[in-house]
Amino acid sequence: MEKFELAVRGGIVLTMDDEMSVLSPGSIGIEDGEIQYVGKDEVRGEEEICAHGCIVTPGFVNCHTHSPMTLFRNAFEDQPLEKWLREYVWPVEARLKPEHVRIGARVAAAEMALHGVTCFNDMYFYMDQVAEAAVEVGIRGVLSEGMVELFSDRASEEVLRKGTEFAKKYHGWKGMIWAALGPHAEYSCSLEFLRKVREEADKLGVGIHIHLAETKPPVDEFVKVHGKTPIKALDEMGFLRKDVLIAHAIYLSNEDLKIIRERDAAVAYNPVSNMKLASGAARIEEMMSMGIRIGLGTDGPGSNNSLDMIQDMKIASLLQKLRYMDPRSLPARNVVKMVTRGGAEALNLDHLIGSIKVGKRADVVVINTRKVRYQPVRDPYTALTYCGSGSDVKDVIVDGRIIVRDGILQTIDVEKALEEFEKAVSELFG
Amino acid sequence: MEKFELAVRGGIVLTMDDEMSVLSPGSIGIEDGEIQYVGKDEVRGEEEICAHGCIVTPGFVNCHTHSPMTLFRNAFEDQPLEKWLREYVWPVEARLKPEHVRIGARVAAAEMALHGVTCFNDMYFYMDQVAEAAVEVGIRGVLSEGMVELFSDRASEEVLRKGTEFAKKYHGWKGMIWAALGPHAEYSCSLEFLRKVREEADKLGVGIHIHLAETKPPVDEFVKVHGKTPIKALDEMGFLRKDVLIAHAIYLSNEDLKIIRERDAAVAYNPVSNMKLASGAARIEEMMSMGIRIGLGTDGPGSNNSLDMIQDMKIASLLQKLRYMDPRSLPARNVVKMVTRGGAEALNLDHLIGSIKVGKRADVVVINTRKVRYQPVRDPYTALTYCGSGSDVKDVIVDGRIIVRDGILQTIDVEKALEEFEKAVSELFG
Repeated sequence: MEKFELAVRGGIVLTMDDEMSVLSPGSIGIEDGEIQYVGKDEVRGEEEICAHGCIVTPGFVNCHTHSPMTLFRNAFEDQPLEKWLREYVWPVEARLKPEHVRIGARVAAAEMALHGVTCFNDMYFYMDQVAEAAVEVGIRGVLSEGMVELFSDRASEEVLRKGTEFAKKYHGWKGMIWAALGPHAEYSCSLEFLRKVREEADKLGVGIHIHLAETKPPVDEFVKVHGKTPIKALDEMGFLRKDVLIAHAIYLSNEDLKIIRERDAAVAYNPVSNMKLASGAARIEEMMSMGIRIGLGTDGPGSNNSLDMIQDMKIASLLQKLRYMDPRSLPARNVVKMVTRGGAEALNLDHLIGSIKVGKRADVVVINTRKVRYQPVRDPYTALTYCGSGSDVKDVIVDGRIIVRDGILQTIDVEKALEEFEKAVSELFG
Repeated sequence: MEKFELAVRGGIVLTMDDEMSVLSPGSIGIEDGEIQYVGKDEVRGEEEICAHGCIVTPGFVNCHTHSPMTLFRNAFEDQPLEKWLREYVWPVEARLKPEHVRIGARVAAAEMALHGVTCFNDMYFYMDQVAEAAVEVGIRGVLSEGMVELFSDRASEEVLRKGTEFAKKYHGWKGMIWAALGPHAEYSCSLEFLRKVREEADKLGVGIHIHLAETKPPVDEFVKVHGKTPIKALDEMGFLRKDVLIAHAIYLSNEDLKIIRERDAAVAYNPVSNMKLASGAARIEEMMSMGIRIGLGTDGPGSNNSLDMIQDMKIASLLQKLRYMDPRSLPARNVVKMVTRGGAEALNLDHLIGSIKVGKRADVVVINTRKVRYQPVRDPYTALTYCGSGSDVKDVIVDGRIIVRDGILQTIDVEKALEEFEKAVSELFG
């Protein structure tokens, strides 16, 4: 029997490879952080994870969030976005210090890790703090300083400088962090600014992470001012390329969809946030059948409120079924694909992660599906999608390192992180 | 310090009493299965449950399900209802034996118990088996034989006989089971049959559980044939009263809503099933503000697929926010109310259960909200609704008896139940 540094033994392995192979049971051999064996033969490891009665998947990729906003959750809820931002979030954000961001991001990274997220795409500020928190916890991050230009020249230079400085310093950091530029949205950045962002991204060789068409009024307003949709305008200036990730993408014309497909830009679908804030329902089923690259996002913890992608997988499918009034929309298999390989593709990291395949980095999640709620596991895709909870994640491996074992985070002291977090919350909100 | 048979100590207690009192921390003293103390003073118990760092609520009430259908879940998924029934469910149901129903219901009852459901409203067949399974596991059931008349006189007599026989035998059984009559739906029962059901219910002194207006085509068809809506037609024959629970209630006119309010009939809202089957979105926010009694239901495990009401609470709120395109719709507090006291009211059991109040039966759930995903628990209603998972339920008390302790079911051998279940599933599906 072959022996590896680390072996995952005996689960239902959803590889998400090109053939969507399912090994039941299957085993994984890991060496130097890389997957070196996937198959039906039993293997041994110096370290071993028993996946008997479990479903094993590639690590989940959270394609859109604002992780430090754990600080803001569970208060001032059930409010319109504008009111929530103006009366609650912005006044406190004005007082946020880098250490608050670190503390909030650490709790978010811990929560994501515990729920099987091994890579997240994040936009906020003080992103160096988020990078540190992600590495502490042991998950990968694609991080961007949120650049809210607000149409003033001074702000424009300042935010662009901050965004590019962060990207220069952190892109490729410790093999776990990638940077992107994060112009905030079509309503908070001018076209001129977005042109500059595109140029900087090209110079730096990093991607772009932007909110577009999340709600209807800004899109209508944009069309009124510019005589064309945001997607059309961005495309005309050469902004849209394979390295652009569009968060939300709800209010799009048919032509917009075609443009996104043609330029091979990617989309982050955030079903929970889109429902919670009453933003609307993106046309994900159509986008998928067009071949647009799509990942799943939780959005910030303030508008979800958990960072449990298994929970969000179910809602992702339910929302599409309702959107098209067709129960065949976004079937479970496509949801599992979206949350793993789809996310990796959307972030252009699929050469490294997103499937359980020899040669890829070893990001693996083991979910305890022996529990009653999953039975019978006749179709593992539907059992995971429709019966699942992130609270049932048993083990998580990132880059060959076990960061969660039997539901316990191995990398940081969660109790201590929560104490600091509680202190920060009472400091900020009194 | 006062001492009771059983004490729950030191959690955030959401009492759901008339004042919606929250005790943080609060304690509960239980004697003879009854709540005898609720308050901020510390109490002791011969048996004790530590709720430190936990949210404590009344037991959840699942207002609409078909529990034995655990047998059918996780196969032939993402299909239209009609196809799913014709090609998958009905052929197998024709072969179902009483013991299959017992085995399926036992797994469902175990799952519900583990997720904090202490009372469920169920419609299927061989309901004596479901009653036995509920009592084995230790949860309460309001049970009805599903009566599909299909407009044939012979069937009519036969199903009515079965339904009333069950009700006679099991109404009030062991203080845990209540019976109802379960005419299936407006499209599967004639008005004449429904009139007979109403008479029988009156004779027996039991309630009525019926699917109405779940999808649009049958309602349109009904209006075409009868010149009025199903609600209007039922009302004219005196069918609608306080003892009627309407499952789904999606395609209703404004007049229908007024009639339901006037007759004080109750509604079971099934957001997950309504999305998964692409049925639509009920007007729950409006119904609540009209004062219609509403409980939350999972619907059958085949169309959910889990029986995790904490998960469904989140989706219940999200769907209403999207339905009205207003993030203020169905706020978290109302969701928690709906799943506890609302459900008890909808089933006319609120004199016994539904709130944590001196004199009520002791049905109590303790959820471990010390986990990262709930932090910070500034508003316990939103923490539970938007961050929660049934997998985090720690302890469950029904009628003063601890049926789940530290996440472990105390009443039946779950492993053994799952073995029997797996055997039954392979027997049925080969």
